[in-house]
Amino acid sequence: MQIVSWFEDLQDRICDDLELMDGKGTFVEDRWVRDEGGGGRSRVIQGQHIEKGGVMFSHVYGPMPKQIAQGLKIAENDFAATGVSIVLHPKNPWVPIIHMNVRYFETNTGHWWFGGGIDATPHYIIPEQAGKFHQILKEACDGFDPNAYTEYKKWADDYFFNAHRDETRGIGGIFFDRLSESSGYDKTGCWRFVQDVGNIFVDSYKILFEPNIQQSYSEVQSQWQAIRRGRYVEFNLVYDRGTKFGLQTNGRIESILMSMPPKANWLYNYQPAKDSPEAQTQSLLKKDIDWISYTEV
Amino acid sequence: MQIVSWFEDLQDRICDDLELMDGKGTFVEDRWVRDEGGGGRSRVIQGQHIEKGGVMFSHVYGPMPKQIAQGLKIAENDFAATGVSIVLHPKNPWVPIIHMNVRYFETNTGHWWFGGGIDATPHYIIPEQAGKFHQILKEACDGFDPNAYTEYKKWADDYFFNAHRDETRGIGGIFFDRLSESSGYDKTGCWRFVQDVGNIFVDSYKILFEPNIQQSYSEVQSQWQAIRRGRYVEFNLVYDRGTKFGLQTNGRIESILMSMPPKANWLYNYQPAKDSPEAQTQSLLKKDIDWISYTEV
Repeated sequence: MQIVSWFEDLQDRICDDLELMDGKGTFVEDRWVRDEGGGGRSRVIQGQHIEKGGVMFSHVYGPMPKQIAQGLKIAENDFAATGVSIVLHPKNPWVPIIHMNVRYFETNTGHWWFGGGIDATPHYIIPEQAGKFHQILKEACDGFDPNAYTEYKKWADDYFFNAHRDETRGIGGIFFDRLSESSGYDKTGCWRFVQDVGNIFVDSYKILFEPNIQQSYSEVQSQWQAIRRGRYVEFNLVYDRGTKFGLQTNGRIESILMSMPPKANWLYNYQPAKDSPEAQTQSLLKKDIDWISYTEV
Repeated sequence: MQIVSWFEDLQDRICDDLELMDGKGTFVEDRWVRDEGGGGRSRVIQGQHIEKGGVMFSHVYGPMPKQIAQGLKIAENDFAATGVSIVLHPKNPWVPIIHMNVRYFETNTGHWWFGGGIDATPHYIIPEQAGKFHQILKEACDGFDPNAYTEYKKWADDYFFNAHRDETRGIGGIFFDRLSESSGYDKTGCWRFVQDVGNIFVDSYKILFEPNIQQSYSEVQSQWQAIRRGRYVEFNLVYDRGTKFGLQTNGRIESILMSMPPKANWLYNYQPAKDSPEAQTQSLLKKDIDWISYTEV
């Protein structure tokens, strides 16, 4: 299956690039096997810059679990799912957390679709960098459909949202799911787009990583990072469909929860000081910000 | 309303006792008002021994939100709910996390019930202390109904369970809900029992606090504490009904999430060393352990 091997190769290429970016850490691999069919390669790095990061490949198949069929509102049959998932928690608070996912799903009764996306969660939002990050995502989208960026950016804003705090997880990015013929696309086009998303991941992260990785930081900034990481935990455990799905379907816990930050703090009723950099970031955790406009100064 | 004022007084008494136990920290109070009716007194301590602790009183009332009525499977009408909730995260890893809740709910159409419980989450389980803790809970239950301890201990084991890790949150305790006439009890009896649970809280915690609070601890033990706290976060965000309910119904976030630990860690694929104290605790995170038998050595 060409898609599976392309995703495996994507994992290899991204791990190589991230090791170069980290400059010291290397990925450790756990291979795991799923009783009902398939398995994966979980790779985790604990480096000098990437404090904790995971690049996970999986390819699972077999009879479709009842819960999945119900969730998808399709009849139970055999299925296969494959994809690459990434979450990186950098040590330096000036560098954002990044998340990427590309995935493919099919059944033996002819259903198929792609999903995925890239989004970033800066501890400190630097609007010009956020703009450049969105610009690279937009370019990938524009090659697929002129409306895609607008639609998938909104999807990310709506999805990566901590409703209980009325704040976005970060600066969003793009998110899409169930791309298939019923969305008006052919398989070749979808697959090319998903490959583009996978291929631009490292470049999109470099926009957020390289200008900041050598910045010095204080205890106050690490503390704020730990608070922002707490919000990341809240999102992933309360809302994230992939996480909930994994927990409910008896997935491999360590792979599902590799998205958890190495350390997180919860301070009671913490409020950033007025006009502080922390307050500025807080004020930008909103949907529908036109990040790209910040690059046009 | 006598129940409300008794709960308010319970909050006062417990805060006084906990300040004495901490020896340094004092509670800071936030009073909050609920738009639809009622409000609460959230009290938080950040002391020398209690790193972060909350003792929350609330009394809310008004038209019943649709979500609550659906959840309870009763017709919408006016309701009132009041209670005291406590979570304490000690600084010393040898001292367990403790949780207590007592609550009362009624509608203007004649429904009423009580709920509550006390349970503990040791970072290091010391079976003899766990036994004494359960013994004091059993005595309170025995005064109410000879079957209550067995039933409510099982309820706690089943409720405070991280299914995705196949481990209990801690050593459990007692948990009960919807105690009312339909459970075969009269209101006076239920109310006396709930008062007993509130009244023994401090003594039950002293069993776990006093023998351990002066114990020295190492970096390894603080690290394990941070990992155990991470599991506490997982339980509260993924399973806890009170937390989910609060998040869904637009409750006061800082009061709902005061149960979060001040710091938590997630290490990838962490496994305690064989025969270590951490491995021993891990092996005891199981349902249906007869803790009281450990006191009968």
